[in-house]
Amino acid sequence: MKSIFSKIIDRKIPCHLVVEDKFSIAFMDINPIAIGHVLIVPKTQVDYLFDLDSETYHRLWKFSKLVERGLKKTISCKRIGISVIGFEVPHAHIHLIPINKLDDMNFSNKIKISSLELSSLAKKISTNIKII
Amino acid sequence: MKSIFSKIIDRKIPCHLVVEDKFSIAFMDINPIAIGHVLIVPKTQVDYLFDLDSETYHRLWKFSKLVERGLKKTISCKRIGISVIGFEVPHAHIHLIPINKLDDMNFSNKIKISSLELSSLAKKISTNIKII
Repeated sequence: MKSIFSKIIDRKIPCHLVVEDKFSIAFMDINPIAIGHVLIVPKTQVDYLFDLDSETYHRLWKFSKLVERGLKKTISCKRIGISVIGFEVPHAHIHLIPINKLDDMNFSNKIKISSLELSSLAKKISTNIKII
Repeated sequence: MKSIFSKIIDRKIPCHLVVEDKFSIAFMDINPIAIGHVLIVPKTQVDYLFDLDSETYHRLWKFSKLVERGLKKTISCKRIGISVIGFEVPHAHIHLIPINKLDDMNFSNKIKISSLELSSLAKKISTNIKII
């Protein structure tokens, strides 16, 4: 069965797109724990990140670094944290989260943000990413 | 100044070593949030993970996958979570955390474990890692 992320990739469901290439896609988490919380998803649907083939796994981390550079330029924060958990959607994904302290990585801290704001953030981050 | 991790790498401070190669080292977190909580550290001392040069960054994630395979074989858990935060030690590191539910990734949930148990776990995980 196609995951919600595969449906986003196939443009069956909309997203606040940040950037994509042939193999990976980055879009805003619609249930963010911080301003600028982005999801990085491989276009191949595999549940568990470590089960990705080596090439896809490598590409995904490379792509994450690319997105991080744009995110760090856009959002005022000390660093971009990384979290990979994976109990909610059976399609591997990396959370990139702008953080200023340890507790900013706490997934209980959902923030409220409008769709309009997410859309505007996605555009700003996108502008700051250098596609290679 | 040499970080506590560089001192571990230089054998100035002991650790519960899991595995190492020329570029990366894996050892037990002595303040774990789960049984089998391992740290993956590049031998080059750089504060922020995303500031690592591309080759070191790539090698570190490849090494993490290697360690994850051994960890998953050793510890009974649903998956191995990933967390990168970095406010405590100014030397990039990846947390690999055996998890069964979202809350297992919560850094407030420190567990109590003896040095003897950590040492025994490190050996077991190490045995299950295939060095390439």
